[in-house]
Amino acid sequence: MKPSIPKGTRDFSPQEMVKRNYIFDTIRGVFRNYGYLPIETPSMENLDTLMGKYGEEGDKLIFKILNSGDFLDGLKDKDTSAMSAKEMTKFISEKALRYDLTVPFARYVVQHQNDITFPFKRYQIQPVWRADRPQKGRYREFYQCDADVIGSPSLLNEVELIQMIDDVFAKLGVPVIIKLNNRKILQGFAEAIEAPDKMLDIAIAIDKLDKIGEEGVKKELVEKGFSGNQVTKLFEYLILKGDVIRGAENIHYEENVNKDPLYLSGMLSTKYNSNKNFVINETLSSGYFELQKVVGVLKNYTELKASVVPDFSLARGLNYYTGTIIEVQIDRDKCKSEFTSSICGGGRYDDLTGIFGLPNVSGVGISFGADRIYDVIEELGRFPKDVGGTTKVMFVNFGESETLYCLPLVIELRENDISAEMYPDIAKFKKQMSYADNKKIPYVVFVGADEIRKGVVKLKNMTSGEEKEIKSDELIKHIV
Amino acid sequence: MKPSIPKGTRDFSPQEMVKRNYIFDTIRGVFRNYGYLPIETPSMENLDTLMGKYGEEGDKLIFKILNSGDFLDGLKDKDTSAMSAKEMTKFISEKALRYDLTVPFARYVVQHQNDITFPFKRYQIQPVWRADRPQKGRYREFYQCDADVIGSPSLLNEVELIQMIDDVFAKLGVPVIIKLNNRKILQGFAEAIEAPDKMLDIAIAIDKLDKIGEEGVKKELVEKGFSGNQVTKLFEYLILKGDVIRGAENIHYEENVNKDPLYLSGMLSTKYNSNKNFVINETLSSGYFELQKVVGVLKNYTELKASVVPDFSLARGLNYYTGTIIEVQIDRDKCKSEFTSSICGGGRYDDLTGIFGLPNVSGVGISFGADRIYDVIEELGRFPKDVGGTTKVMFVNFGESETLYCLPLVIELRENDISAEMYPDIAKFKKQMSYADNKKIPYVVFVGADEIRKGVVKLKNMTSGEEKEIKSDELIKHIV
Repeated sequence: MKPSIPKGTRDFSPQEMVKRNYIFDTIRGVFRNYGYLPIETPSMENLDTLMGKYGEEGDKLIFKILNSGDFLDGLKDKDTSAMSAKEMTKFISEKALRYDLTVPFARYVVQHQNDITFPFKRYQIQPVWRADRPQKGRYREFYQCDADVIGSPSLLNEVELIQMIDDVFAKLGVPVIIKLNNRKILQGFAEAIEAPDKMLDIAIAIDKLDKIGEEGVKKELVEKGFSGNQVTKLFEYLILKGDVIRGAENIHYEENVNKDPLYLSGMLSTKYNSNKNFVINETLSSGYFELQKVVGVLKNYTELKASVVPDFSLARGLNYYTGTIIEVQIDRDKCKSEFTSSICGGGRYDDLTGIFGLPNVSGVGISFGADRIYDVIEELGRFPKDVGGTTKVMFVNFGESETLYCLPLVIELRENDISAEMYPDIAKFKKQMSYADNKKIPYVVFVGADEIRKGVVKLKNMTSGEEKEIKSDELIKHIV
Repeated sequence: MKPSIPKGTRDFSPQEMVKRNYIFDTIRGVFRNYGYLPIETPSMENLDTLMGKYGEEGDKLIFKILNSGDFLDGLKDKDTSAMSAKEMTKFISEKALRYDLTVPFARYVVQHQNDITFPFKRYQIQPVWRADRPQKGRYREFYQCDADVIGSPSLLNEVELIQMIDDVFAKLGVPVIIKLNNRKILQGFAEAIEAPDKMLDIAIAIDKLDKIGEEGVKKELVEKGFSGNQVTKLFEYLILKGDVIRGAENIHYEENVNKDPLYLSGMLSTKYNSNKNFVINETLSSGYFELQKVVGVLKNYTELKASVVPDFSLARGLNYYTGTIIEVQIDRDKCKSEFTSSICGGGRYDDLTGIFGLPNVSGVGISFGADRIYDVIEELGRFPKDVGGTTKVMFVNFGESETLYCLPLVIELRENDISAEMYPDIAKFKKQMSYADNKKIPYVVFVGADEIRKGVVKLKNMTSGEEKEIKSDELIKHIV
């Protein structure tokens, strides 16, 4: 029997773990620094909680857990002869592995609403599972690192979340572009071309602009039932993106600005005077306003390292977003990377908890994809050299009396928070040294009969190769 | 629809999380300090990897995952009419959630043996899942914190693991008793009463000595087929535990000691002279020797805070142990606790990787039960007051121009690793203060129109109630 693990899953070696922990610790540090508090939810949720929240495709990708004990009990008195797997699942499975952290979080908020002080700023770093076809960079078990604020409609939260994204990637040394859009803008487009119910179709199609180009998107929209006229008009709106947003730099964060629709249409006038068809409907206007407000505050009151780029073609697939949407990509002008997919994303959802019976609670959040971030930092060669985690001092084992002589020294180092280990076996010197090498241990101590007699130890600095004899009780002073 | 979670699982609130993290961080810190390195394995393993490793009862408690896609495919051409759930599982489930960290670790070692430098000291802190009947203190998802050394037969590893246990509980402020035994002693008993194949029956029965008393154990053994004579003889051995081990204090850690069986029987002679039936067979002798060596080094060369108590009735259920066994209980003489069950345990296994095709690799390890430890510290009221994790400074939100004035101050604090947050909404003052109270935030900053004009902020120390006006650019100096 040759041991293996399920496809799409991974073991993490110590070398990988210390790098992964460096990423998690960085993200966690930023979350905490902004006043977010941790929660955890169970790996398994009731099947009811998850089903129907991620679309039909999503439902299929949820890992279901077979009822424990005699699961056939659930099928008693049922005619199974013509039953499909999907139907049968209901009777033999009640639980499933979580698919993301957002739906369990919404469930958490509703279930514990009486114990929570709102606005509730929480972070959550846990694995999720998806029965996706495994491929390079896509796994069946992977970690999400989420931060959300729930119960506050303020755009200040958006500003803060974008600052957090900037902080995380600055600390990790990864140059990024933060793309922004607002679902209300997309909805406004849909209304402007008289297809108010088809915002998601539009969003899904224009999301592919990068991949299939303008013609491809137009073709897809026609196939979805849009008229040629509607498609042409939609693209008149889309092309405008650059102009509108440059204006955002001059916007100040004033409370009353959205009460004056002229304020926005005024800004747009240069471009749109020549186009009589262009209508700024109310939805579009409020989407523009929100986007400009967020960008304006970021540009005028913070100093981000990342580029913030409004992009009206940004859609994001998840259908619970209703306001701001955020997507982060590698800034390939500033570094050599093959990665084009998103490494962080998020947005505002006005009614996520509504599905669990608590309506009208606005939330906004972001999610870091730790696995992709790992691959990017590895590709860029930007993991710090001393990412930590290994033993500082190893004592070579020359025999039992030598070991007993060293034991109090090992204990003393540990008491001073210097990680130390005694090689456990009386093995060949070469083997012990190669153990220290492999583990990248910076200091090795030798104690033989001579040293014991003289009350000293021999300390070797493994980086410089330098060896020196020092008094036993002064060892700790020589470890940097 | 009222949201809920599967029975036996739990949500963790921020208040619980910071306490849990305090426990995990303490354990992780000790693991690292002793030179152990982290690994992680997937939550799901192939069903083959897990089945048959935990006994028949264990197999039932493993959570199986339904094959994704059309799982009925696996049943095509099969006659399902008389199939039991157990049989059917093979065809509709290939994966399962891990049941402990030890078996996946053994699988890991065998799978990656060519990349590992032995002895391999690894730690692993991850959840495990068991379909046990939920009850107080017993959950279906819970964390294990394991440290193991594999590829080293040295008893120094046992010594170190016990030091680690002592360190962890000393740091957590939980007084404990560390009970020790050795499976070879139990096997030696079995051989001495001429039932060499029945070590596990003996182990399981005497493990219940605490619960059902001497008579209960004797009855169980008779039911298992032991003769009255065998049972009587077994108890003659068991009673001796105190005497033998006190002698251990005088043992020095000498290499040749186990070559002289008289050395041990000599120690036992006082007691056993009067008992002609008593035979120290070879297995028993080597078990005694190992136990005494471990205890001897601990007593003579370390300064443990915990009591170390050899206990021949200690058995532990897991049948892969072959040498030392360790179990940790609350020291109820030193603190008021209702907990009688074990909060940490471990032992040596000589052939765990053998089941995956790599025989003769000795390992030894310990496992901390974080959930029980949590309950104990809570019961004893010994969580530190400032267990950390909350925001240090909150800025009250009096309006948008005030917010924009504060934003650079918030950023400055965060850049200095002082966690800070701006209340996001222009809410009532009382609501904002009660948010700060609930979150136990120690400093609150007020900035109104007056303060902006004067270039100052008002800082309130929430513990002392003291308020002072300070220059905006000196805020950071006033946060301790």
